[in-house]
Amino acid sequence: MAGRKRVVIVGAGFAGLAAAKSLRAAPVDVFLIDRRNYHLFQPLLYQVATAALSPAQIAQPIRSILRRQKNCTVILGEVISIDAGARIVKGTRGEVPYDYLIIATGAKHAYFGHEDWRGFAPGLKSIEDATAIRQKILSAFEHAENTQDDAERQAFMNFVVVGGGPTGVEMAGAIAELAKQSLRNDFRKIMPDKTRVILAEAGANILNAFPEKLSARARRDLENLGVEVMTNGAVSDCTADSVVIAGQTIAAKTVIWAAGVKASPAGDWLGAEKDRAGRVLVTADLSLAAHPDIFVIGDTAAIKTADGRFVPGLAPAAQQAGKYAATVILHKLEGKPAPAPFAYKNLGTMATIGRNKAIADFGSFTCSGFIAWLLWGCVHLLPLVGFRNRFVVACDWVWAYFTRERGVRLITTNARSEDTDL
Amino acid sequence: MAGRKRVVIVGAGFAGLAAAKSLRAAPVDVFLIDRRNYHLFQPLLYQVATAALSPAQIAQPIRSILRRQKNCTVILGEVISIDAGARIVKGTRGEVPYDYLIIATGAKHAYFGHEDWRGFAPGLKSIEDATAIRQKILSAFEHAENTQDDAERQAFMNFVVVGGGPTGVEMAGAIAELAKQSLRNDFRKIMPDKTRVILAEAGANILNAFPEKLSARARRDLENLGVEVMTNGAVSDCTADSVVIAGQTIAAKTVIWAAGVKASPAGDWLGAEKDRAGRVLVTADLSLAAHPDIFVIGDTAAIKTADGRFVPGLAPAAQQAGKYAATVILHKLEGKPAPAPFAYKNLGTMATIGRNKAIADFGSFTCSGFIAWLLWGCVHLLPLVGFRNRFVVACDWVWAYFTRERGVRLITTNARSEDTDL
Repeated sequence: MAGRKRVVIVGAGFAGLAAAKSLRAAPVDVFLIDRRNYHLFQPLLYQVATAALSPAQIAQPIRSILRRQKNCTVILGEVISIDAGARIVKGTRGEVPYDYLIIATGAKHAYFGHEDWRGFAPGLKSIEDATAIRQKILSAFEHAENTQDDAERQAFMNFVVVGGGPTGVEMAGAIAELAKQSLRNDFRKIMPDKTRVILAEAGANILNAFPEKLSARARRDLENLGVEVMTNGAVSDCTADSVVIAGQTIAAKTVIWAAGVKASPAGDWLGAEKDRAGRVLVTADLSLAAHPDIFVIGDTAAIKTADGRFVPGLAPAAQQAGKYAATVILHKLEGKPAPAPFAYKNLGTMATIGRNKAIADFGSFTCSGFIAWLLWGCVHLLPLVGFRNRFVVACDWVWAYFTRERGVRLITTNARSEDTDL
Repeated sequence: MAGRKRVVIVGAGFAGLAAAKSLRAAPVDVFLIDRRNYHLFQPLLYQVATAALSPAQIAQPIRSILRRQKNCTVILGEVISIDAGARIVKGTRGEVPYDYLIIATGAKHAYFGHEDWRGFAPGLKSIEDATAIRQKILSAFEHAENTQDDAERQAFMNFVVVGGGPTGVEMAGAIAELAKQSLRNDFRKIMPDKTRVILAEAGANILNAFPEKLSARARRDLENLGVEVMTNGAVSDCTADSVVIAGQTIAAKTVIWAAGVKASPAGDWLGAEKDRAGRVLVTADLSLAAHPDIFVIGDTAAIKTADGRFVPGLAPAAQQAGKYAATVILHKLEGKPAPAPFAYKNLGTMATIGRNKAIADFGSFTCSGFIAWLLWGCVHLLPLVGFRNRFVVACDWVWAYFTRERGVRLITTNARSEDTDL
């Protein structure tokens, strides 16, 4: 095996995992570094945050995904810096030399310069985020049930979701369903259907990547679920007890941030040129102009399509980029000419609002309502890694569909405790 | 409803929940206080700790269990003290007056005066304990894979379980199966089958509540799984890196405590007489001699059977006591004579060791091996609250049986993180 080229991939999200798998038959040693031991199916993370799914149902150990790919070594560790001259990744688990490097470290939330809001308005990127949001939502109803103060009670029953993209729409719809259906009969003092769910979107439309007709349909669907949609609703302040939307102060104990993302600090490691969102600018073959042996893909990179727009931050786009970067490396190894520049193939976009409600845009063909919702279900079930997860998630969905129950209503704390019930 | 008697129950474990349900048709207002929002099926907690089940599969929201019992109000809160003179429970959610009080707050781990071991040898009582142990076990293999030091590698692959009761036996068996079967092909440097699992029991036999023949069978089954059983193996010291068993120092990074329990501090709230394990001494009707309106049940109480032995800390015993306390209260309300003293009905005891391996003792009839394992599965599946949990756990077990996989291999951290994969 001596003399085999080493491909180091940082990040086992959709992009990194696709790159690793595409190299399965290549005469290279692949090293996949991630600081989590699992690949996360992020599109369903909002269902963990709203008590519909367990974390393990949307997460699969990276080691077991790649068990049979003998040329791939999984390293659980965090990257500290990259020495592009010496071709070494420096991390918490020591130094990993590379011949080719693929960076696919994703993105994190951005608070547009208001970092102090982070503590009041958690975002939804990791399993820990999701269980913390779940805990916050479920605890709010408990506090509301307990308080003697009418104003405080309503503040606990007001939920504000900031950002009208797919994640914000999904969160708002799911919280409305949780409150008005699943919890309806579980309290003795409060009426969970008095819950207010407010979706604040700074722009003129929610889901603005979709055709206007679909965006309007999603808005009607949300409003039928009882969600108050506030477009042109920029947030100018956020505290533990309230949020200011378009100049109006709304008392709310639970604010969820789904408004903006910022690329991971990979650009800083590389000293590379970045756009305003921190995304690394890449060449037509997804590598760095200064370092053709380094590829940046997925949400970490700003990739332009042929028509000059940016490739969206969707799972299929990340997977396509991962496969493409692996292909470029294979061509180089085999001495073949470089492949044609990366071309994003839009497979369509979808967003779900709630039970029987979704929208889908396949370019030449759009749909909404029950058909779109069924399509959404299939599209999100099929790629879930591992047959067992697929089957269990399907069972949970069917069960939830008929009972309107939520299966994972646990308020767990971060502190380990030796004590008992009480 | 004014003038209805108030029954306050503290703790929604097996005992408290059985008491609340038994009062469903009674002309009383029931208040069930718990500091968790869910009832936990503790007998399967070891499966959460060993990555086989998700927390939500063995936990059900108390509110949804009691949704239809309109005379019952669930209060999420913690008890601080009890004023038995004024008949008031004082807690984090204010004061709750009572006419009858049932205390069912369970037990916690005891380190026999070595409280400093608690940090090195976590016990298994709560969901947070279970996910912390899961994280510790899975991380140990990651550290072993990464280290360059042979001695350190083996210390990460040595697992010590302290205490040869049912929980200790189940943990030791499950860790051995996890290492030697589920993880077998997932690492590139370490061989997970070089894992050592040591079960340390201070007494002469493991599972000493069982007939000697069954105890010996369980030992053989454990040894066939590769577990080293050290009887007469009292632990005299425990650090982050090692444990001293019967004078012998064993390098082990992961030590799990399943050796002793201590009742919750309910005895202190009540100023009641306690035994050495902190359990409250109760009269023949499970109430306090000084306060016949206060009942103490479940693991919090020291209850004697007719033959002078103590009622064991098992779910059926706790449920029987809960029903009995409710009956005593009903008789008092209706002016009927007191029922016959509490008599524990032994429904049998079981312990599982691993795949196809368990022991069961029904007094007149004992069994072991595959039959006992099947029985164990049914007995632990049927009482799982909620049809959906039962169905999903059954699916998981069938799937795990054929694939030898573990479905919940997640290393989650306590810290919430906004960052991404990396």
